Amino acid sequence: MKLALDAMGGDFAPATNVEGARLALERLANLEKIYLVGDEAALKRQCDACGLSGSHVEIIHAPEVVTMEESGLMAVRQKKRSSMSVAVDLVKEGACDAVLSAGNTGAAVAASTVKLRLLPGVRRAGIATQLPNEYGVCNVMDTGANPDARASHLVGYAVMAAVLVQYMYGKAEPKVGLMSNGTEECKGNDFSKETLKLFRQLEGDGKLPFHFLGNVEGHDLFEKELDVVVTDGFTGNVLLKTCEATAKTFSKWLKREIMKSYVRRAGALLMQGAFRSLKKTLSADQTGGSPLLGVNGVSIIAHGRANSTAIFNAIRIAEGMHENSVNPRIVEALADMGNIPAEYDLPR
Amino acid sequence: MKLALDAMGGDFAPATNVEGARLALERLANLEKIYLVGDEAALKRQCDACGLSGSHVEIIHAPEVVTMEESGLMAVRQKKRSSMSVAVDLVKEGACDAVLSAGNTGAAVAASTVKLRLLPGVRRAGIATQLPNEYGVCNVMDTGANPDARASHLVGYAVMAAVLVQYMYGKAEPKVGLMSNGTEECKGNDFSKETLKLFRQLEGDGKLPFHFLGNVEGHDLFEKELDVVVTDGFTGNVLLKTCEATAKTFSKWLKREIMKSYVRRAGALLMQGAFRSLKKTLSADQTGGSPLLGVNGVSIIAHGRANSTAIFNAIRIAEGMHENSVNPRIVEALADMGNIPAEYDLPR
Repeated sequence: MKLALDAMGGDFAPATNVEGARLALERLANLEKIYLVGDEAALKRQCDACGLSGSHVEIIHAPEVVTMEESGLMAVRQKKRSSMSVAVDLVKEGACDAVLSAGNTGAAVAASTVKLRLLPGVRRAGIATQLPNEYGVCNVMDTGANPDARASHLVGYAVMAAVLVQYMYGKAEPKVGLMSNGTEECKGNDFSKETLKLFRQLEGDGKLPFHFLGNVEGHDLFEKELDVVVTDGFTGNVLLKTCEATAKTFSKWLKREIMKSYVRRAGALLMQGAFRSLKKTLSADQTGGSPLLGVNGVSIIAHGRANSTAIFNAIRIAEGMHENSVNPRIVEALADMGNIPAEYDLPR
Repeated sequence: MKLALDAMGGDFAPATNVEGARLALERLANLEKIYLVGDEAALKRQCDACGLSGSHVEIIHAPEVVTMEESGLMAVRQKKRSSMSVAVDLVKEGACDAVLSAGNTGAAVAASTVKLRLLPGVRRAGIATQLPNEYGVCNVMDTGANPDARASHLVGYAVMAAVLVQYMYGKAEPKVGLMSNGTEECKGNDFSKETLKLFRQLEGDGKLPFHFLGNVEGHDLFEKELDVVVTDGFTGNVLLKTCEATAKTFSKWLKREIMKSYVRRAGALLMQGAFRSLKKTLSADQTGGSPLLGVNGVSIIAHGRANSTAIFNAIRIAEGMHENSVNPRIVEALADMGNIPAEYDLPR
């Protein structure tokens, strides 16, 4: 696999990106080459600093950078020579198989969608983010590519994320739930109720290529055996950030309590193995990045605060998606499912 | 204040309800009387068991109980002699000032809304739930009374929750945010963008009786000085449950890590004060209950898993709302604000 890396994207760019690339080239067997896209001089310095050289790495100069504050679509239109745009262009032109950016998420979504376009049969791309779960991981989709969605889009998200789970993580029959405000069949808002109806209809017709569990709620994210949870990008984004914020606040407040006495601090010292292990389980760096599923090419979006471990893990996901032919499988699965009744394709 | 307590509501009823009532009668100065509503024989036994007697407590017999699985509106229509219905009736008839239930939330919302009706000027009632925050507490409204909402409803939620914060907790100028998928002004789904526009318009006209902070996101719930966050009941419910689930999972997984070695267990023992203190901060029992704001009467909804501390604290909130005339203040605040442009009152 050949990867285009937006080396200027993210809060700690380009250092973490270049270091993450070095780790990936060292460890990932199927990674042929990484194109580091960004300011040539800065990237050259960074490569020298971490001893990254050779024919499996190439710097592609891009003089502009998309900032975290810019509007996504505007950035794509106006900064054609940004590291992000040029990195996506490498996939568009066929020079690379995958693109990774830890930069402005909205811009990464816009650039990937506009330049790579959608896979055949895909109505709407979405971001699939992994959360740790009692039984492994739960993929929440969409966590923010498109704030508004239609019922048909959520069915598409379910198919795409289920294909990811099946072909990349080897789960024979992925379990999929629809996020709602309760597990009962009657629960939901107008939109989620309509979506549930569509899922049930397709299920009745034997068209769903996964096991559909119906409505799920917040607690199920962690406690139920659940591979995929679908929701619109607004709810998914609120959910994801609430989850991150709660875990962060819990840690912070526990730390504050610990600092209040010497006895507690001694206790925490004895417990440091437990803290370290839990931190690793919960850390987004271990996941690394979230695939933007549905675009014609592998596009991975990493957290703005991604460190080199996160960049490495995000590249690992790109490699996995490419090697396991996730995109061709998505096209097949959607073609097998056939058309979705037009009435579920109306704007909200 | 006189309180009607749905003594059969909740997973541990009637024991926790009766014990919570006893604690409240012992400690709350302005609580004149509690009517325990439910199965007379069971309640009499429970009162005897915990030594609750005297003229400040009275058992009102109600032979039916609304279960947790029933549809809210159906339960109100069909079980007219349920403990929940009879408790709400006591407020409707003027015998009580407030009602509290730890039973089926949907049924408590339906019974309160149908029987008590809305306060003058209120378009839609909503549940305001407190989350602990770096600066005190953040009231999230609506956490599930009505899954769908209009822009005008969210303005109403903001006014009602701001009045609660101002008159019950003494914060002169409550800070209110609109939940979104990012803090930038351009962020949101179609509904939240329309709502933001309405807030900005009313702000420009000097009509908002609080400080409006614009869009807020998950992290702000805990980290920003924020008294109120408004959102529709679907998003609010997903947010609240995700938050509870994350904290619960974090604790559970940390406990599991601790059990893995004797050293870690010894450390945890030294740290038990820290754990206890954090648990208290995070526990929903300390808040006790969430007011259903907007109905004509004080109606408090407690968690199904409420223990006696939670019931006590929920009664404390009812007393606070009554003593501080929160409902009359809500009516005044809405009247002062005047009409909301009709175009923001359309169904989604």
